[in-house]
Amino acid sequence: MAHTEMTGAAVLTFEHISEVVRAVGLDRFMDEVISGLRCAGTNLDTEATVVLERSGFQYSKPDVGLIEWMPSMELGRAVGIKTVGYHPTNPTQRLLPSVLSTTSIHDTSTGQLTALVDSTLLTALRTGAASAVVTHILASPDAGVVGIVGAGAQAVTQIHAISRVRDIKKIVAFDTNPAVSATLAERLPLSVPVVVVETATQAIAQADIVCSATTVEIGAGPVLPDHGYLAHVHINAVGSDFPGKMEVPVAVLRAALVVPDDPLQCLREGESQQLEPSELGPSLPQLISNAGQYERFQQEITVFDSTGWSLEDLIVAEIALNHARQLGIGMFTDLQSTPTDPYSPYEGVLG
Amino acid sequence: MAHTEMTGAAVLTFEHISEVVRAVGLDRFMDEVISGLRCAGTNLDTEATVVLERSGFQYSKPDVGLIEWMPSMELGRAVGIKTVGYHPTNPTQRLLPSVLSTTSIHDTSTGQLTALVDSTLLTALRTGAASAVVTHILASPDAGVVGIVGAGAQAVTQIHAISRVRDIKKIVAFDTNPAVSATLAERLPLSVPVVVVETATQAIAQADIVCSATTVEIGAGPVLPDHGYLAHVHINAVGSDFPGKMEVPVAVLRAALVVPDDPLQCLREGESQQLEPSELGPSLPQLISNAGQYERFQQEITVFDSTGWSLEDLIVAEIALNHARQLGIGMFTDLQSTPTDPYSPYEGVLG
Repeated sequence: MAHTEMTGAAVLTFEHISEVVRAVGLDRFMDEVISGLRCAGTNLDTEATVVLERSGFQYSKPDVGLIEWMPSMELGRAVGIKTVGYHPTNPTQRLLPSVLSTTSIHDTSTGQLTALVDSTLLTALRTGAASAVVTHILASPDAGVVGIVGAGAQAVTQIHAISRVRDIKKIVAFDTNPAVSATLAERLPLSVPVVVVETATQAIAQADIVCSATTVEIGAGPVLPDHGYLAHVHINAVGSDFPGKMEVPVAVLRAALVVPDDPLQCLREGESQQLEPSELGPSLPQLISNAGQYERFQQEITVFDSTGWSLEDLIVAEIALNHARQLGIGMFTDLQSTPTDPYSPYEGVLG
Repeated sequence: MAHTEMTGAAVLTFEHISEVVRAVGLDRFMDEVISGLRCAGTNLDTEATVVLERSGFQYSKPDVGLIEWMPSMELGRAVGIKTVGYHPTNPTQRLLPSVLSTTSIHDTSTGQLTALVDSTLLTALRTGAASAVVTHILASPDAGVVGIVGAGAQAVTQIHAISRVRDIKKIVAFDTNPAVSATLAERLPLSVPVVVVETATQAIAQADIVCSATTVEIGAGPVLPDHGYLAHVHINAVGSDFPGKMEVPVAVLRAALVVPDDPLQCLREGESQQLEPSELGPSLPQLISNAGQYERFQQEITVFDSTGWSLEDLIVAEIALNHARQLGIGMFTDLQSTPTDPYSPYEGVLG
């Protein structure tokens, strides 16, 4: 039964997560996620941390969509499974975010579910944080202009996260829906001039850093132009997460150092679909653990192929959970409290 | 926030499920699950119902265990994902069931999580129900003696389920732990004589129906004898669910009609690991939809290789959920209620 003591399985709703982030402070929370990812990447022991590629159901009925699961394990401690829905018609048809997700955390000593965490905001935050980690290493140190292609929800967290590692002076934003780019400035948690432009080419022309986060349809990409970039541009390509969906032209990828967050997954459904495995640069954890070695690319073209790495979801959920427990926020429920005799499944039924 | 109106995502704890089953009545609930499986098997449209093999993490730290996910989809309606932990040391070391699980249900229109249901009891019920469906078709019509090898939690639901399709006159039970077989009678929801014996050979000697549900270790099986069965015995082999784990000797399988619940999964981790694909009989849905054709095997040796079929979990969870909604049982929480602007992830944070 539901109770407010902090034992049992934690259930954190969207509202609980918002309350946690408000209490911690949005900037500090983002900094903790950035730091959590950096730390996990630096110390990654592939024996002790197992990250599986996502898998799922894709369908076109009733609308185009997919439901996927992204599992990761920290051996001897926890399994995290994020279940994520991507339904591109949600915002226009249902006033819902296109990406909705929850993360369940399981104790590997007993198999018990220890937490269910709404991950809609957390996914946006960790996707931003991953871009910030890479941007910090690969963007020009004095990068100040950010070009946005696709000005929806993800653009907000990309800009916010990048603002924690670079001093953003101007945003140049393009969206195929002008009503969306028009409201970008007021959706941002920081005060920075936003120039709305009418083409992707204009958005990237002066940009030190580009973020593409679109819902381009399968087969309809790329959405970024072939040329017209600054010679040191760093691109965070966030939208590609589906076979056939892509945002960055192959010519740009071939001219760049490409950092896939999860190489196998990126080759299947990221920008890296357009490349051979030999054309990939370091993976996200490889980049993080050898950051010094890659800083020389700050003056060259670089692309972060961000498809979403399962471990990011476990990390951000646990950061939120730890704060929630300390702050006393959330529901705590005896989800799996079982009768005293483990051999008697009907004990609770027969009374 | 948690509220008791029946909107939002339903969270059904172990206690809620018990309350539902008590309210419906244990026999009627079991009958509904049996009938639900039969109906799903009969009408199975493999275009509209997609059942994936399970996948998961297996480990030996801190103890031997696994956490797996079992996904299924009814196209255009729902995705169910059962997450199941199997930790054989739970009962003796932690007073917890070895199998603990939860099922999440997602709406394929939006990707929203509609329910999280503790599935510890439901898994035991549906595993019993699956055996009952097969037993009804393949066991001798006047089968009255049930031999039990492994008298733990699963034995209880196997016996209960079988009692709904055959008139059980006697149970003959063996467990490697005599303390477990000694309490079987008092854990049953029906009144039937239980004879405790000291070997598996004694348990199966007079049995019309055998149920094996053990936690035999990988590589230590089989647990059933090579011979000594009645010529018409029907065996429900429930315990095998892991590569290398098996209960039934290959000689018995070769002499029998073997019904795998999910052929690919059974070849990988069921009794059917010991067989070639060509040696398998009909799958569970094939058996159900052609029941009349297989009734001639009632006088022969038959084996149900029950590894757990993902669709069973979606079916039993939805039966429980429908009753819960009607009875007003459960917690209903706005797990994924999001701000009004789907493009503004920080709307709830910035206030």
